[in-house]
Amino acid sequence: MKRFDIFGTLKKDMDVIEKELYLSVEGDSPELTETSLHLLRAGGKRLRPVFVLMGGKFGDYDIDKLKHVAVPLELIHSASLVHDDVIDDADTRRGKPTVKAKWDNRIAMYTGDYIYGKALQLTTHLKQPEIHQILAKAMVEMSIGEMEQIRDFFNTEQDVRRYLLRIRRKTSLLIAVSCQLGALAADADRKVANSLYRFGYNVGMAFQIQDDLLDLCGTEKQIGKPPGSDMRQGNITLPVIFALEDSQRREPLLQELERIHALNGQCDVSDAVKLVTSSEGISRSEALADRYISKALAALDTLPDIKTKKQLRDIANFITKRSY
Amino acid sequence: MKRFDIFGTLKKDMDVIEKELYLSVEGDSPELTETSLHLLRAGGKRLRPVFVLMGGKFGDYDIDKLKHVAVPLELIHSASLVHDDVIDDADTRRGKPTVKAKWDNRIAMYTGDYIYGKALQLTTHLKQPEIHQILAKAMVEMSIGEMEQIRDFFNTEQDVRRYLLRIRRKTSLLIAVSCQLGALAADADRKVANSLYRFGYNVGMAFQIQDDLLDLCGTEKQIGKPPGSDMRQGNITLPVIFALEDSQRREPLLQELERIHALNGQCDVSDAVKLVTSSEGISRSEALADRYISKALAALDTLPDIKTKKQLRDIANFITKRSY
Repeated sequence: MKRFDIFGTLKKDMDVIEKELYLSVEGDSPELTETSLHLLRAGGKRLRPVFVLMGGKFGDYDIDKLKHVAVPLELIHSASLVHDDVIDDADTRRGKPTVKAKWDNRIAMYTGDYIYGKALQLTTHLKQPEIHQILAKAMVEMSIGEMEQIRDFFNTEQDVRRYLLRIRRKTSLLIAVSCQLGALAADADRKVANSLYRFGYNVGMAFQIQDDLLDLCGTEKQIGKPPGSDMRQGNITLPVIFALEDSQRREPLLQELERIHALNGQCDVSDAVKLVTSSEGISRSEALADRYISKALAALDTLPDIKTKKQLRDIANFITKRSY
Repeated sequence: MKRFDIFGTLKKDMDVIEKELYLSVEGDSPELTETSLHLLRAGGKRLRPVFVLMGGKFGDYDIDKLKHVAVPLELIHSASLVHDDVIDDADTRRGKPTVKAKWDNRIAMYTGDYIYGKALQLTTHLKQPEIHQILAKAMVEMSIGEMEQIRDFFNTEQDVRRYLLRIRRKTSLLIAVSCQLGALAADADRKVANSLYRFGYNVGMAFQIQDDLLDLCGTEKQIGKPPGSDMRQGNITLPVIFALEDSQRREPLLQELERIHALNGQCDVSDAVKLVTSSEGISRSEALADRYISKALAALDTLPDIKTKKQLRDIANFITKRSY
């Protein structure tokens, strides 16, 4: 999914957001400006700002207001990524060296703290206290989600519910909030904002499941790192949980996961990947992602019929177009 | 300096703040609640909340409003400490195991993120946008200060100005802001809030210089860790910068610092400590701390003559009462 492929009409305003993003991290510290710009320039789909702008289309669309929500949301997402890379000991992201690889863990940590602070500073331009409350809650929930992910590393006893709760916090809430805050910042109808929240939440769930599927089923070229990175790291995703429910695969898969754990992920994981990809874990995960997409589409039903509604539908449908 | 020794009359409200602090980090994540409570229960002087309450005395003092500034400020301070401990690889703080030692670095990082988020959530109870702006700016400046500290590790060419700029960001601004926001949250006169800011800023500078002196001149019992921890870590503080200006001590001290650097601080630092403590670095640093205290006291001059004014004066004078 390239950045602007499906967002043609928003392209001009997304260019504004891109510039504002870079400006937002410039400041008194040449070091932190450099590390932050490195992180932001490495790219990304800018999904959260796109959803903010689209949410704004349901109210009094004003890019000068919306940017004060769109930029902080992307910053919060980016700060969480740079902290993630420390945890995951990741050397590349989006094909470029991570902050922790190019500099070090300590610098990556303070880069994250700095970007969180900058995000917070920008939101103070907005006068609606509700927006601050929603953003602050999203930050708290995200850190809980990250913590749950660490807690559940190599936990082969976790069930689907636990996985879903975790990705809800880690991914879906921030996407839900992006859609909702775009509408609220544009003074859209509260019911519209709530529907957009539901849309974003369900799209976010499908998006994360899809991302977890891609890590197992994609090629190295597609995903920018070798398949099975999640398992290597101990992150037990939905397809793996489903594969562990398969009585034929359970034992060999448990053994493989134990071996990977014992070797701290410094080993070949292709057998474990094959055990999962040859199981029903893939189709069951796909079916669940599709169900979330259906719920996302249903959330759009009550929205007024503007062009953006069709575009949101297109995004939702795009997510489940599988390329592996 | 014990927590309540000099704050007798504020004791009841500080008990409220203490309870609110613990409540503030309780939430959906048992893990993050536990790590955060561990951090907060380890204690601390609660200097920032005390200054908030004292600032509030210059306006319409209302603990129910003031707590929404006092608690976030202590949380921001605590979050920065838990991230600091990761950087410093510190195993104890205030005589108790750090979060990173009791759990691990990853958990310490997310505990910090969680506490920052919780701080932010609490401030949304306050309706004055100015308070949010000041807090957000303080967070950004603090992370710049932390980054500058890393950048300047083992940099023996840094001058006094650079040291002062660094501790300004790392320590003084948050103390300045504590005094100022207490006044603003209580709708005190803006001039009063500004004077309190200047008071806090100068007290903060003196406080950090004093803390850096104590790390060199204190006993292990007094400081809870062996003297010279700053040098071991590469943190070149004011007394060391002054000692390096002493032509007799410069060369041997440079050699010692180079050795400590080469051994990553895993060595005896007592020779280096002695070179500094026997130099004029100590008296020159004390003189500078005293100058900041004089400025802090001068900032109080314009304030209305209430009991709190005298208490603030007592705190300022207390800081330079040296026990080493």
